[in-house]
Amino acid sequence: MRTQVGIVGAGPAGLLLSHLLHLQGIESIVVESRSREYVEKRLRAGILEHGTVEVLREAGLADRLNREGLPHEGISLRFDEEDHRIPITELTGRMVTVYGQHEVVKDIIAVRLAADGQLEFEVTDTKLHDLTTDRPRITYTNAEGRAEEIECDVVAGCDGFHGVSRQSIPANHLNIYDHVYESAWLGILAQTPPSHEELIYTHHDRGFALHSMRSPERTRLYVEVDRTEKLENWSDRRIWDELHTRLALKEGFDLNEGPILDRGITQNRSFVAEPMRYGRLFLAGDSAHIVPPTGAKGLNLAVADVRILARALDAFFSLKKSELMDTYSQDCLKRVWRAEHFSWFMTSMLFSFRGADPFQKELQKAQLRYTATSEAAAKSLAENYAGMPFEWSDR
Amino acid sequence: MRTQVGIVGAGPAGLLLSHLLHLQGIESIVVESRSREYVEKRLRAGILEHGTVEVLREAGLADRLNREGLPHEGISLRFDEEDHRIPITELTGRMVTVYGQHEVVKDIIAVRLAADGQLEFEVTDTKLHDLTTDRPRITYTNAEGRAEEIECDVVAGCDGFHGVSRQSIPANHLNIYDHVYESAWLGILAQTPPSHEELIYTHHDRGFALHSMRSPERTRLYVEVDRTEKLENWSDRRIWDELHTRLALKEGFDLNEGPILDRGITQNRSFVAEPMRYGRLFLAGDSAHIVPPTGAKGLNLAVADVRILARALDAFFSLKKSELMDTYSQDCLKRVWRAEHFSWFMTSMLFSFRGADPFQKELQKAQLRYTATSEAAAKSLAENYAGMPFEWSDR
Repeated sequence: MRTQVGIVGAGPAGLLLSHLLHLQGIESIVVESRSREYVEKRLRAGILEHGTVEVLREAGLADRLNREGLPHEGISLRFDEEDHRIPITELTGRMVTVYGQHEVVKDIIAVRLAADGQLEFEVTDTKLHDLTTDRPRITYTNAEGRAEEIECDVVAGCDGFHGVSRQSIPANHLNIYDHVYESAWLGILAQTPPSHEELIYTHHDRGFALHSMRSPERTRLYVEVDRTEKLENWSDRRIWDELHTRLALKEGFDLNEGPILDRGITQNRSFVAEPMRYGRLFLAGDSAHIVPPTGAKGLNLAVADVRILARALDAFFSLKKSELMDTYSQDCLKRVWRAEHFSWFMTSMLFSFRGADPFQKELQKAQLRYTATSEAAAKSLAENYAGMPFEWSDR
Repeated sequence: MRTQVGIVGAGPAGLLLSHLLHLQGIESIVVESRSREYVEKRLRAGILEHGTVEVLREAGLADRLNREGLPHEGISLRFDEEDHRIPITELTGRMVTVYGQHEVVKDIIAVRLAADGQLEFEVTDTKLHDLTTDRPRITYTNAEGRAEEIECDVVAGCDGFHGVSRQSIPANHLNIYDHVYESAWLGILAQTPPSHEELIYTHHDRGFALHSMRSPERTRLYVEVDRTEKLENWSDRRIWDELHTRLALKEGFDLNEGPILDRGITQNRSFVAEPMRYGRLFLAGDSAHIVPPTGAKGLNLAVADVRILARALDAFFSLKKSELMDTYSQDCLKRVWRAEHFSWFMTSMLFSFRGADPFQKELQKAQLRYTATSEAAAKSLAENYAGMPFEWSDR
């Protein structure tokens, strides 16, 4: 097979890229190791930055997002059993939207298939070849067991942290930045209405907790656990008890309980591979960088990468200009490092790491109190949380 | 001898307290282990917050400060060989003033002696007694070798980090927060005009450097060195070479050299003892807390403590009300922890700690670039640097 852009991975990065390229008249094929059903149900991030929603709207992908997405104009910081609201929209003129990543995936798959887009699910043995030539190839075995080969001009590596794309780059061509945190997230999805209309980021001596939601009927809740914790140690009762304790308010807080529909443990890790390009291979999203979930930045970074990549490829295919491909990595990395820093900032302010010394614990509280009382500090958090504007640059 | 307030230490905290009490008609005696000449020459901090200058002016201590102090409306963050100015006054409506701590000390000593204030220098063997009674005592040997005793109502412990006051509190009555950083400051005072009109806080791969000044003819310069570094390893030439390297700018930077009048190594340490009171003993300034010099907060915290203590003692002696004495510690500690956090923030952003991993180094750069480009982040730095208003509270 022959196409212009071979895309590895049908997560939000690969799918959105395929759609944006289609709008620009550029052909692509997406190959994905999981089934369509799996990627459409996989529970991941759920907070869309202001700019992410704009990208999806401009690309005609927001019909359902506009109807079902929950716009949020603020978040709460909860500590010492009190709430301190950060009025994001008042401070920044921007907002965030609660809408699950798998819903975004579902919406784009439907649009791509309606446009006869080529999506190959359940492929195995994916390999990248000839990346430093102008005719790179992707080989794989398709769902029927047939060996396939895609010859293309460009490969987009959108296959996540564990995918084959980044691993296809010789190690000596990458600078790796990696930081694993002491604690992790135990998250549940519960069949019960949210107990508060906004997200509540909670710092408690027993650990971080987060109250979030996916819809008016489904609550998403998290507690900080040890990095090596096992899911089987946490009965439903233990999870709820811990949530009640950490989310307690002086004036009382009614936390709605309900059947737990999904549960899992997510690591807190910061990772960046630089540069995000090797020859004709371009990494986008989690294949190049991951962030602790605390800043809600992972999905949004993927969308920002793809937005830049789609423009670079447009200039390449339409105008034969490669300047934007040459600056792709550095253009993305400005935003990536801003998000890495913000995610680290939120994590170190909110988590109660095992072994943190008493001085560090007091610093956390001082940071929280300051963020809750200084408009400048609150605005700094808010502009990062809503997402720096695309035109923003720190260099 | 009998007085109302026995003050241990003739640094800025003890001297200012003695003067503020005098203005309120409250008697005090100050005892100090060093000579008058020593405390009037001891090179220490030199950046006065907006509010610190106001306190000194209101207390009639600013005649010379008004003439000789250098008002500053901004600082530079220098990294990647470029300057990024933080316009403090534009962002906050406040400014800082460069005026040496020993000049403040000189000014207050002159005013106290003119008012027949009792200052005892070069005392030895100072001891505090009966602190939990309403007649605490200070015993010491005076400069002539005579044993003395001061009976008082209140003791103010203003004798710094290594003084006897904090050590007179039983250990089980104090919570100690202590953090020692990997690197230290090597500072010089040079007989040469400043090379730039404002302070330059520099982050360089080889380490932090600071360009500051004491007067139009004297420059104060610092380089980050290892915590265990010895002064004798640093020849004049090595110091200047290191300063030239770290302070370099792409467009060139002319660093004025001159004879080195003074040099020393200062540790980077964060320390807080809570509460700042034990019975009738009240700690103020460095005896209760120290900060890394990076935030320029040490002297300013001492002045803020003393301002609160003078008011509390006025209520106690004039109105027999002890409420402000009871809230003294918590009233001070709000500001102390704000300053501890800010000093840690500045230090961790600017210093190039040995052994910092590559991820941490990139976070520093991301933080620097963000602070230089986001108005909210710059304002957050600026309001802390100029000093939060006295009426500010984070609780």
